[in-house]
Amino acid sequence: MPHRYFTRELANGQAALTGSDAHHLANVMRARLGEEVVLCGPDGLEYTGSVTSITPGRVEFSVSEGAPSKAEPNVAVTLFVGYPKQGKLETIVQKAVELGAVSVVPFFSRYCVATPKKEEEKNARYNRVAAEAAGQCGRGILPKVEMPLNLKELPGRLAEFDAAFFCYECGGQPLRQELGQAKKIALITGSEGGFAPEEAQLLQEAGARVIGLGPRILRCETAPTAALAALMTLTGNLE
Amino acid sequence: MPHRYFTRELANGQAALTGSDAHHLANVMRARLGEEVVLCGPDGLEYTGSVTSITPGRVEFSVSEGAPSKAEPNVAVTLFVGYPKQGKLETIVQKAVELGAVSVVPFFSRYCVATPKKEEEKNARYNRVAAEAAGQCGRGILPKVEMPLNLKELPGRLAEFDAAFFCYECGGQPLRQELGQAKKIALITGSEGGFAPEEAQLLQEAGARVIGLGPRILRCETAPTAALAALMTLTGNLE
Repeated sequence: MPHRYFTRELANGQAALTGSDAHHLANVMRARLGEEVVLCGPDGLEYTGSVTSITPGRVEFSVSEGAPSKAEPNVAVTLFVGYPKQGKLETIVQKAVELGAVSVVPFFSRYCVATPKKEEEKNARYNRVAAEAAGQCGRGILPKVEMPLNLKELPGRLAEFDAAFFCYECGGQPLRQELGQAKKIALITGSEGGFAPEEAQLLQEAGARVIGLGPRILRCETAPTAALAALMTLTGNLE
Repeated sequence: MPHRYFTRELANGQAALTGSDAHHLANVMRARLGEEVVLCGPDGLEYTGSVTSITPGRVEFSVSEGAPSKAEPNVAVTLFVGYPKQGKLETIVQKAVELGAVSVVPFFSRYCVATPKKEEEKNARYNRVAAEAAGQCGRGILPKVEMPLNLKELPGRLAEFDAAFFCYECGGQPLRQELGQAKKIALITGSEGGFAPEEAQLLQEAGARVIGLGPRILRCETAPTAALAALMTLTGNLE
């Protein structure tokens, strides 16, 4: 299977990789002129790129016609996730990317143990984790991790979506009943401490539908993975 | 919510906790006489235990009539999982318990990077991880982690099950099509290296049905969690 790279520099049948990707392809993979790789363009399409030039820090390609990636689900899921303790957000981001989420938005809420600290730096790291996972699992797009919000800002964001599903630790309806034909979906899961009652109310008033993930209490890093796997199963994107 | 403990010493309306559980209840939770806890018996039923005696290293209870745990899925899933590198098996065990598996059986296969080493010691640790996860997520039974097998031993084990589903990295049928009405289910996922073709053939000849988990390549620690979540979703046990 040819290696996959994401590039922003792709137009008119030509493309280039720079920086660490160029280094990886030229020096680690030891690519030769004419060698083919998969290039994922900024338009979300996949291209076959044939190496035309290798210079220090830059590899250039001629590219075929683009095609939609077969690896992308037919639903666009954004995971809004309560900011967890320690390094758990990295694990959550990695699994969310593998399971097909298009973006991850961490948020702080009343019962979060984590507090905002060096978030710009951390966000850069989370996006590196996402990019690495996207390459490894064969995504056609590069999912983004946004800067953290406060839970109070979530209602303002939910209008962007066809449907929002709020995984509440106090239980709710089965996802299969609530899912419908939504294509642009917000999935909301909490941090270790869960949600305060007024936060749950705020999300419901903003139109989020409350769903339950069963009688077992899932850890805050298990719930988003399980909920995404459930959603992708029910929409035929995990088969 | 009252605390939950698993005990083997429960019969004729009486029960006891010893060892670290007794210490936890008496010294950490500072239980008093008459206090109620949930006791999960060796019969898989749940009891309300009322403390009748507290002595060093032993807490005794009178117990109510047992009832089936509402937290247990209506399918009994054993996860056979390729032995992964580093500490990943602990994570896999923890998530499998949260998602309702009744047992986990690691196996060594041709492309495993891990090699058998101090497995008795490790098995004791995996079972502690399982017990801790079971208590934390509210399971009604104590899932077991078996000693590792070799993949060649799997065919001999599959006869115990109504159905075996083999998550093959080369793809297969959707789980929803293959699932049927099976109640006692074997779920098989691989290690980092996946399966050799002759291993895949061996499992299929033993009756395992090949299923696919979609076009994205899941990490060896993501696949069992995703597959279990999919199975529990399709059987109505994650809602």
